[in-house]
Amino acid sequence: MKTLTVDLGKRSYPIYIGRGLLRQPELLRPHIPGRQVMVVSNEVVAPLYLEPVRAALEGFETAEVILPDGEQYKTLDTLNTIFDRLLEKRFNRTCTLVALGGGVVGDITGFAAATYQRGVHFIQIPTTLLAQVDSSVGGKTGVNHPLGKNMIGAFHQPRAVLADTDTLDTLDDRQLSAGLAEVIKYGLIRDAAFFDWLERHTVDLMNRHPEALAEAIERSCRNKAEVVAADEREAGQRALLNLGHTFGHAIETGAGYGVWLHGEAVGAGMYMAADLSRRLGWIGNDDQVRVGRILEASGLPLEPPRGMDPDRFLELMAVDKKVLDGRIRLVLLKAIGEAVVTDQFDPAILRATLESFCSAAA
Amino acid sequence: MKTLTVDLGKRSYPIYIGRGLLRQPELLRPHIPGRQVMVVSNEVVAPLYLEPVRAALEGFETAEVILPDGEQYKTLDTLNTIFDRLLEKRFNRTCTLVALGGGVVGDITGFAAATYQRGVHFIQIPTTLLAQVDSSVGGKTGVNHPLGKNMIGAFHQPRAVLADTDTLDTLDDRQLSAGLAEVIKYGLIRDAAFFDWLERHTVDLMNRHPEALAEAIERSCRNKAEVVAADEREAGQRALLNLGHTFGHAIETGAGYGVWLHGEAVGAGMYMAADLSRRLGWIGNDDQVRVGRILEASGLPLEPPRGMDPDRFLELMAVDKKVLDGRIRLVLLKAIGEAVVTDQFDPAILRATLESFCSAAA
Repeated sequence: MKTLTVDLGKRSYPIYIGRGLLRQPELLRPHIPGRQVMVVSNEVVAPLYLEPVRAALEGFETAEVILPDGEQYKTLDTLNTIFDRLLEKRFNRTCTLVALGGGVVGDITGFAAATYQRGVHFIQIPTTLLAQVDSSVGGKTGVNHPLGKNMIGAFHQPRAVLADTDTLDTLDDRQLSAGLAEVIKYGLIRDAAFFDWLERHTVDLMNRHPEALAEAIERSCRNKAEVVAADEREAGQRALLNLGHTFGHAIETGAGYGVWLHGEAVGAGMYMAADLSRRLGWIGNDDQVRVGRILEASGLPLEPPRGMDPDRFLELMAVDKKVLDGRIRLVLLKAIGEAVVTDQFDPAILRATLESFCSAAA
Repeated sequence: MKTLTVDLGKRSYPIYIGRGLLRQPELLRPHIPGRQVMVVSNEVVAPLYLEPVRAALEGFETAEVILPDGEQYKTLDTLNTIFDRLLEKRFNRTCTLVALGGGVVGDITGFAAATYQRGVHFIQIPTTLLAQVDSSVGGKTGVNHPLGKNMIGAFHQPRAVLADTDTLDTLDDRQLSAGLAEVIKYGLIRDAAFFDWLERHTVDLMNRHPEALAEAIERSCRNKAEVVAADEREAGQRALLNLGHTFGHAIETGAGYGVWLHGEAVGAGMYMAADLSRRLGWIGNDDQVRVGRILEASGLPLEPPRGMDPDRFLELMAVDKKVLDGRIRLVLLKAIGEAVVTDQFDPAILRATLESFCSAAA
């Protein structure tokens, strides 16, 4: 087992990474300060993994909420069902919420923990690769609004994260690839050595080799933790984590919610960002080829969905939170392993990238 | 005009107290960092005070939400109407929310600011005495749940508070008295000199003398700010601010939501706490008499509503957030100007207090 500590002063916490962690109660129990524990999961994950968690919590006063599965349930209404249960069970402000599931379960449970009685304890047991490398670090919690994703939320740090690689055995292939997109992102934005390692281990990762997965998760979380520790409130460096996300959000919305997975959209978005960076002369053609090759080997799409044109792209990109005063700010590459956030680029070159991709997809 | 700075390090902010502040745009404008401002008010306060605030915001991109009046609207649903408006207007994460109204408007607007895009700027313009002396300091925001008051919320500090004493001219008498209950509380828990001053100025305050009001608001906020600065997350000292509140919550619920004002219930609750403190031998009979006299002179009730018996009281008190592991913790008096939080008292003596008050009320 690997242990990574996210350094946030008094709110520092460990991420445990490895096999069979769900069956080790001694990992979970010391991080529960009170007697009351509510496990929040969903109807897909609970049948697979709730039992060992339940066993690990023996002796605590426990309750469970099983949410429906899917991003469309990441709403204030679903959040309220967690509050209903907490209050029915008379859970007090010393209670702990445990999120057992992917990103949706983690985000909504974290937001419930951030706001129940103005904040209670929170533990994450992410069961998808994406959640293990993304939601484990950063403290972002929240729900969607009909007019925008993640528009309602709070920063709330967990007391511990258990990333059990065994849970990835039941992940479907698309979900695995979507998680790998975020893993590749960490290499691209700030860790060239990790990118090299990923190029050599893509096959192991696609074959779900546990040691390769644990290594990829640890190095991803370490990269994210370094960014977040330096910049907890996303003023500067943290924005680099959005590589591929502005293009990606446009793709997700353009394709219709839920048609593309977030990680798939981010994958294609990173390739678009690499293309724009090349057109700006910031990276070479060979760099863009490397980006395309690793994404492809990871089972990720390189092109946006059919039917999107550059104007639609620009319109959807402008809704993104990264837009300040009307200018589109993007994360672009200066090299493999080095990204910048900038609105200093010729809009005509952005349009050239969009036209090239939209015609390739058409 | 008086200016009090609440010292919270990087999140320190000023409270301006005095007459005609709403008509001084230079107080409000420097505290708005972006271009977008949403004013949230209610249907009673907006017709009285929205116009000068609107005038002060000339040149900003503004929007308004007018909520229905009343504690029964302090819900997640109402909160969502604020999010709807923010997103319809495409307000971004640099926007500022201004709460113009009493405690309900302040709490719900503050919670919207805490959670819109994971936190935006917040300014408070409290228009009731209670909100001026209570919600101005402490950063508590939130909404109610059908199963409990203030069960959903967050800590979120404002960038500035404008307490315009002119807005108290339109306050009805019961609301004024309810606000005075919280003012008296600060004297009782930690400021004997302020309590003495209040005894000498109760008549001025009841007559809404602007200088007396400004003095009472400033000294109340200063006391609360000292407590909060020392203990932002309510671990220790901050609990003293709950003098009268555990009895008070029981009264509010027992009487039926909205029949008693919060401040009225706290007033009677403080008198009950004084009675229990006297029975425990911690304060003298003369002290309890002084407490009763100032509450009465401030137009506050000394007795709980008819029809409540000690068992009902205990049951309702046990639901309160201050209960840890089944023991009722209360704020009690060691002297006028000195309170303690304790569960170290004989339950039989608590019962004696409850019996005495319930039979007096019957």
